[in-house]
Amino acid sequence: MEASWLAETPHRRRNALTGEWVLVSPHRARRPWQGLVESIPAETRPAYDSTCYLCPGNARAGGRRNPPYTETFVFDNDFAALQPDAPEAHWTADGLLEAHAERGICRVVCFSPRHDLTLAELDVAAIRRVVDVWTEQYRELGARPEIRYVQIFENKGELMGCSNPHPHGQIWAQETIPNEPLKECRQQQAYFERTGRTLLADYLALELRLDQRIVCANDHFVALVPFWAVWPFETLVISRRPVPSLLELTDAERDGLADLLKRLLVRYDNLFQISFPYSAGFHQAPTDGRPHPEWHLHLHVYPPLLRSATIRKFMVGYEMLGMPQRDLTPEMAAARLRALSEVHYRMQPA
Amino acid sequence: MEASWLAETPHRRRNALTGEWVLVSPHRARRPWQGLVESIPAETRPAYDSTCYLCPGNARAGGRRNPPYTETFVFDNDFAALQPDAPEAHWTADGLLEAHAERGICRVVCFSPRHDLTLAELDVAAIRRVVDVWTEQYRELGARPEIRYVQIFENKGELMGCSNPHPHGQIWAQETIPNEPLKECRQQQAYFERTGRTLLADYLALELRLDQRIVCANDHFVALVPFWAVWPFETLVISRRPVPSLLELTDAERDGLADLLKRLLVRYDNLFQISFPYSAGFHQAPTDGRPHPEWHLHLHVYPPLLRSATIRKFMVGYEMLGMPQRDLTPEMAAARLRALSEVHYRMQPA
Ligand SMILES: O=P(O)(O)O[C@H]1O[C@H](CO)[C@@H](O)[C@H](O)[C@H]1O
Ligand SMILES: O=P(O)(O)O[C@H]1O[C@H](CO)[C@@H](O)[C@H](O)[C@H]1O
Repeated sequence: MEASWLAETPHRRRNALTGEWVLVSPHRARRPWQGLVESIPAETRPAYDSTCYLCPGNARAGGRRNPPYTETFVFDNDFAALQPDAPEAHWTADGLLEAHAERGICRVVCFSPRHDLTLAELDVAAIRRVVDVWTEQYRELGARPEIRYVQIFENKGELMGCSNPHPHGQIWAQETIPNEPLKECRQQQAYFERTGRTLLADYLALELRLDQRIVCANDHFVALVPFWAVWPFETLVISRRPVPSLLELTDAERDGLADLLKRLLVRYDNLFQISFPYSAGFHQAPTDGRPHPEWHLHLHVYPPLLRSATIRKFMVGYEMLGMPQRDLTPEMAAARLRALSEVHYRMQPA
Repeated sequence: MEASWLAETPHRRRNALTGEWVLVSPHRARRPWQGLVESIPAETRPAYDSTCYLCPGNARAGGRRNPPYTETFVFDNDFAALQPDAPEAHWTADGLLEAHAERGICRVVCFSPRHDLTLAELDVAAIRRVVDVWTEQYRELGARPEIRYVQIFENKGELMGCSNPHPHGQIWAQETIPNEPLKECRQQQAYFERTGRTLLADYLALELRLDQRIVCANDHFVALVPFWAVWPFETLVISRRPVPSLLELTDAERDGLADLLKRLLVRYDNLFQISFPYSAGFHQAPTDGRPHPEWHLHLHVYPPLLRSATIRKFMVGYEMLGMPQRDLTPEMAAARLRALSEVHYRMQPA
């Protein structure tokens, strides 16, 4: 361990990507839990569900019908939070109130026709096809002149507000850079101007040297629990080569991303032997037509579970009003994830 | 309505207190919900529960026993996230990793000996006693030289990670100013330097003039849905007189705060006819020994429910990775809260 008090003393750590802080309370992992215990949704699903609006050939809520797709399928969200044709408008009052119409596009990406699988259970070749779809969507949406930021993400599991277990993610592309990537823009830009290197290239080199928080790695990508992780088992997936977005990945790197995702997500499922809930998404260069050598492609994985399949971390009172707080240290979390098998528990001989 | 497109077009609004943005999608309130439906915990509780670690006279998890208190009761949290005696320490690596030991104190505030009541159901005189306790705690903790910020908050309901239904709140007091109040520090300071008035004094005057988002008010406090509200029924309670903290409130103003809290919380319970879950907390001046004329005392109330007692808003994928997003507009939320009775549904004749 880098400094032994980090494993014992309450302390705060700085998030180098956002400039914000997290409170770490290592001793608190021992407190008893008397609060909400989540129920685990039934895990056996059919390969095809006639009532699922994402299965091939089925009708969706909006009335349209899905094609009989066999690999992946992308469509415009029937209940999109953003619309491409929002009229231009802005409104202010006394410099205190300020509103701007925001144009955008929301899409749904079905990862597989199979209703009963998740990204963790697809084979690497199928995940590689999802990587290709994400890349093409980022390219296509980002090429539209009104789109300056493309947010690719997945909400997995009921706990993460996911309304359908069919394996799918979403893409929200919009006119302005949202709060979170904007913070990362500023930190990465300042670092690049000062050093000529990307912040995450130096951070990754440091983590590989310290070797305390690495979960798994291959020739092209590394998964680690960031020093400043907020969620108990939060991870960050970083490309070894500093590239601003999915667009610059070589064929071998795309394969590497698929391989690393598979191995990381299997570890998550194995942690509590359930289909692990999370929200995950890429942060990459804005599509504002400018070069972004300071941006370094990465994926954040934010899983809510804390101690077991049924006990989650709540980001509530203090966290909403003050700052995020965690009990188990990032080093403890990384050690647990590192120790797990990369063979999915459902595939293991009983 | 200030500008009619605000009720129809997707747009973003700026939070004047933090400088951050929220995405508003007014048309999206109509989407069907197929996701998680929460269960509502049973609502009948005994006035005294022998297994509750917060009831008078009972033993707590840490082994100590509560006194037979009859009004309010404050004690040091048995599983505190912060500790007063954390040794001073800091650690950095390559300017990328940075950690500091953080001293602090965590307390629990029991609002009433009655296990079966909530703040909304206490009478105004009892709430006034809670206001007094909060004020004294802020004074006492803030007077300690190592404490620079005192966060008073309440997590209410299982949905908000509250592990015990006995009416209680918490106080986390610490060495540094956490992320959220720090953003408000910066915005309020810049505004005060520019105008000589507090940001919230001008904001409150503007809201009273526009009269679109006010929920309820008395001579001393106003509750409104802020223009930049993130949670569906989020509210902000602002003192009419610009004071930096609870310490400066007159006797009549403390009564006013108790009265307004009662009326607001009863409206919340009446919205879906359940004991309404929320996290709430005061933001007030740091206790760093400097004068803070720019700070204007306020209370944030963040309730998670969206459409009914069982359907909540999830702040997940896009919200975690991009920015907060809401469906129903703040104006619609304010109109609904405004229309509700101030007589608690449990007290209404059937
Ligand atoms: O202290 P409690 O009520 O056990 O815990 C609750 O409130 C804390 C402060 O907001 C959070 O850190 C915890 O995640 C939550 O479960
Ligand atoms: O679009 P869905 O899956 O229906 O909805 C889910 O993801 C969205 C994007 O993160 C959130 O805004 C919603 O609160 C959540 O329930």
